[in-house]
Amino acid sequence: MEYDGTNYCGFQIQPNGLTVQEVVEGVLKEVLGHPVRVMAASRTDAGVHACGQVIAFDTSSTIPAVRLPLAMNNRLPPDIRILTGEEVSSSFHPRYDARIKKYRYVIYRRRQGSAFWFNRAWLLYIPLDVDRMKEAASYLVGTHDLTSFCAAGSEVKDRVRTIMSCDLADKGDRLELDIAGDGFLYHTVRIVVGTLVEIGRGYWSPQYMDYLLKVKDRKKAGPTAPAAGLYLMEVVY
Amino acid sequence: MEYDGTNYCGFQIQPNGLTVQEVVEGVLKEVLGHPVRVMAASRTDAGVHACGQVIAFDTSSTIPAVRLPLAMNNRLPPDIRILTGEEVSSSFHPRYDARIKKYRYVIYRRRQGSAFWFNRAWLLYIPLDVDRMKEAASYLVGTHDLTSFCAAGSEVKDRVRTIMSCDLADKGDRLELDIAGDGFLYHTVRIVVGTLVEIGRGYWSPQYMDYLLKVKDRKKAGPTAPAAGLYLMEVVY
Repeated sequence: MEYDGTNYCGFQIQPNGLTVQEVVEGVLKEVLGHPVRVMAASRTDAGVHACGQVIAFDTSSTIPAVRLPLAMNNRLPPDIRILTGEEVSSSFHPRYDARIKKYRYVIYRRRQGSAFWFNRAWLLYIPLDVDRMKEAASYLVGTHDLTSFCAAGSEVKDRVRTIMSCDLADKGDRLELDIAGDGFLYHTVRIVVGTLVEIGRGYWSPQYMDYLLKVKDRKKAGPTAPAAGLYLMEVVY
Repeated sequence: MEYDGTNYCGFQIQPNGLTVQEVVEGVLKEVLGHPVRVMAASRTDAGVHACGQVIAFDTSSTIPAVRLPLAMNNRLPPDIRILTGEEVSSSFHPRYDARIKKYRYVIYRRRQGSAFWFNRAWLLYIPLDVDRMKEAASYLVGTHDLTSFCAAGSEVKDRVRTIMSCDLADKGDRLELDIAGDGFLYHTVRIVVGTLVEIGRGYWSPQYMDYLLKVKDRKKAGPTAPAAGLYLMEVVY
C-alpha cells in the first residue's frame, strides 16, 4: 500500500489522533464483514510516507485477495491506496518475515522552499558538500551495531543490522538518500540523515560516520531529521 | 511565484473563499507598509497550480525588489512561494505584456489512483491510445480560432490564438501535456485535455481535432478536464 503520511499520526493505532491503521481497519471491517487487526511491515511515524508498505491480516471472508484493493480503495480516503493483494500462509508476518527494507529520504534545498514539497521533504537551505556526504554514507554499508543511530529510550537489545546499500543522489533541487537494510532501529534513517547533513555542512568529517559506528552512542550522532522527508519504499520477503 | 492551488479558490480575489491573491496582498501590505493591488499573468482557477506565475504591483516602498522574495516567504503559508523579484517599468503588465504562456496538464493513470497525485493530477484509469492523442495534439499547433476550446459564456471576442507547441509525453504512470501559446481562452487547456481523452479512448478520430478548429463550437468538443491536473509553468515576456 502507499500513503501520504501528512494527515496521519503515523501508522499504528494510538489514542491521540487518526492513524493509517485505524482508517484501514475501519474499511476492512466494512469490506470483510468482521473486525480485523492489521499487522504492518513498518510502524511509520507521524508525517512519514509510504510507497511500499505491506500489511497482513487474518480473515474468514471468501473475497479473493486480488479483489481487495479495488473494494478497499473505493472506501479509503484518496491519500491511502492499496496497490495489490495476495493470499499468504497463516504464519506470514509482514514485519518478522521481512528480509530487506528500503527507505528513501528527500531533502529539498532551495532558498525559497517549495509549494509542492513542503510536506514531502526536509526543506533545508544551507550549503552542503554532497561529495563529503556521499563518502560518509558509504561507511554505513555492512554489518554494524547501530546504537548511535537509534533513538534514546529504545528497548531493543540486539542492535546489529546489515545495511546493503546507502546511496546519496544529487537531483538538482533534491538530495535523495536511498538506504536498504535487513532491519532498522527506531529513527535510524532520520538520525543517519541528520548526521549526514552535519557532515555535509562541514561540522564533522566523513570519517566521523565510521567513528559513530564504533562508539555506539546516540548522543554523539546528529539530530533526527524531520519525518516529512522519509518514505518507506519497499519491503522484500 | 509558485503555489499548490489545492487549498485556494483560485488566484483572483472573490467573496466566497480564500484566494492566492488575497493571501499575497495581505503579506505585501505587511512587508511594504501600504496596501497594494496585485496583477497576475494568469487568473488560475480553484485547484489549479502554478510553477511560474508572474505578479506585479506598484509600491512606494524602498525595499529592493530582490529582497522581497525572502521577506514575503517568511510570512506566506508554505504552499505559496515567491521565487524571484525584480523591478520593472511602471507600464509593465504581467498579463498584457506576456508573449508566451506555458501550461502543463498531468493525467495519472493507475487503477488504484495515487496517494501522492490525487490533488495534483487527473486520476483517470481508462485505456488510452497515446499515439492517437499525440497525433490529435499536433493539429493544435498554429494560429487558429479557439472558440471550440473556450468555456461557454466567455465574452472574449477575438478568439484567434497561436499555439507554438503541444506535446504529449508518456511517462509511465503519468501522461503530461505541455502546451505553449501566445494566449489562452477560458478553460482552453482543460477542454483540449478533455477532448484528447475522448480521442484517446476511441470516441473520436485524431482528425476530429482539426474539425473542432474549423467548426468553432464549444458543444462539439470534449468535457472540461479537472482543475487539479493543470499547472501554469512559465510566462515569457
